[in-house]
Amino acid sequence: MALASLSKEMLEAHPWPAQMDRDVLVRCIDECGACETSCTACADASLAEEDVVDLRKCIRLCLDCADVCDATGRLLTRQTEYVAATARAHVSSCRELCAACAEECERHAQHHEHCRICAEECRRCEEACSAVLDAIS
Amino acid sequence: MALASLSKEMLEAHPWPAQMDRDVLVRCIDECGACETSCTACADASLAEEDVVDLRKCIRLCLDCADVCDATGRLLTRQTEYVAATARAHVSSCRELCAACAEECERHAQHHEHCRICAEECRRCEEACSAVLDAIS
Amino acid sequence: MALASLSKEMLEAHPWPAQMDRDVLVRCIDECGACETSCTACADASLAEEDVVDLRKCIRLCLDCADVCDATGRLLTRQTEYVAATARAHVSSCRELCAACAEECERHAQHHEHCRICAEECRRCEEACSAVLDAIS
Amino acid sequence: MALASLSKEMLEAHPWPAQMDRDVLVRCIDECGACETSCTACADASLAEEDVVDLRKCIRLCLDCADVCDATGRLLTRQTEYVAATARAHVSSCRELCAACAEECERHAQHHEHCRICAEECRRCEEACSAVLDAIS
Repeated sequence: MALASLSKEMLEAHPWPAQMDRDVLVRCIDECGACETSCTACADASLAEEDVVDLRKCIRLCLDCADVCDATGRLLTRQTEYVAATARAHVSSCRELCAACAEECERHAQHHEHCRICAEECRRCEEACSAVLDAIS
Repeated sequence: MALASLSKEMLEAHPWPAQMDRDVLVRCIDECGACETSCTACADASLAEEDVVDLRKCIRLCLDCADVCDATGRLLTRQTEYVAATARAHVSSCRELCAACAEECERHAQHHEHCRICAEECRRCEEACSAVLDAIS
Repeated sequence: MALASLSKEMLEAHPWPAQMDRDVLVRCIDECGACETSCTACADASLAEEDVVDLRKCIRLCLDCADVCDATGRLLTRQTEYVAATARAHVSSCRELCAACAEECERHAQHHEHCRICAEECRRCEEACSAVLDAIS
Repeated sequence: MALASLSKEMLEAHPWPAQMDRDVLVRCIDECGACETSCTACADASLAEEDVVDLRKCIRLCLDCADVCDATGRLLTRQTEYVAATARAHVSSCRELCAACAEECERHAQHHEHCRICAEECRRCEEACSAVLDAIS
């Protein structure tokens, strides 16, 4: 089963779902999961490259981004006793980190396919976070 | 983009990929991500149920399973300087936890749709871990 | 060895440390670790209480707080290619979540010792985050 | 407050603690937290070293070890509906990874102080895991 359908099915099965646009929420949960994987893989692939010295900032930001996306995906998955203020602060921080990571990966996109793919995924996650922030306000 | 294609694309872009069947590996990485989400959602939905007292073991195992699946997905995503022995020990532990969590969720599957869905996902992740263990040997 | 000394020793052994007050940074890394443990334990102890139904919000916020403190501790531990803007956004989100979790745990502090201890730890982590934010500006 | 006392206080405040030697359990929870921090810091410091190319295996194992120690610390912290079999499998995997990470860090201990400190921490965590495994049987 695709992850997207799974997240949606799980949210629909919750006895007490949060009041937020379901599709916007599902998209952000799924992009956070994809971005954690993408950033973990890009940090690891960059570490194996010959020009690893030039990829230090990329590796560091990918590791940060994986950690924050993981936490964000978990926070957004939880619907019980949802608190808008804490969700807003965290998703906002996640969006900023995705943007910083995308920007750095884009600098290496022409030389490294994994950076190109990861930059695209970070941009998708950044957009999904923006959509959640719009939906919360 | 579906997570499955993303993981595969990232593995193919690695300069120094591990010697393991690519499809088996991708499947397990993706199921670990799906299972982390599913278990996080099931623990949270169970917490909101009226019969939460009967779901304590389900919640506890779901929280454990989410944590271990997250770590397993990250370990398997990394291809640089892959060590078979540590991968084997960790995937084996993950398989055992997925099985225990599935068994407990199955006990509540008739009463709670989220337990039914989560049990199925845990079984898929358990199978994906088994396939990785077969591929390593 | 106490965790505090370990974090400090590791920061001092870094070839390229971030430009931030070392003691403020070490304190926040250590409080994030302590708060992750405290919140994980409080969520679990609350789940086992007879009045678990009244502790749903406490459990949910503790789970969130553990996840965000873990990510924050990791981000602050990394000194290579440190970016102040992303650190600021994330530590700010962590401080907000610690405050929300402390407030909820304080409501149950008279009935549950684990909530009292956890509330105190969340306040310490909130203060340590505030000190980092002051040090970054 | 030192993390060690906090973990112990929280375990003692649990309404339904697991049947395991309290000191052995507290020590392992605390070492897992210390080892997650130590390995996160060592991976990051190694990335900044001039001989990063020779430290690839060290970085990879430190990242793995941080992830697994985090999951292990969480699993052991949870006392509600404790299941010995899953704890055993996971702590066993954690011990193996700590040993592998220690062995690699020891190879660089003479050149890099952070590897020396991290190797020692990994060995302490390995021993703490062994003590838990002895206590479970």
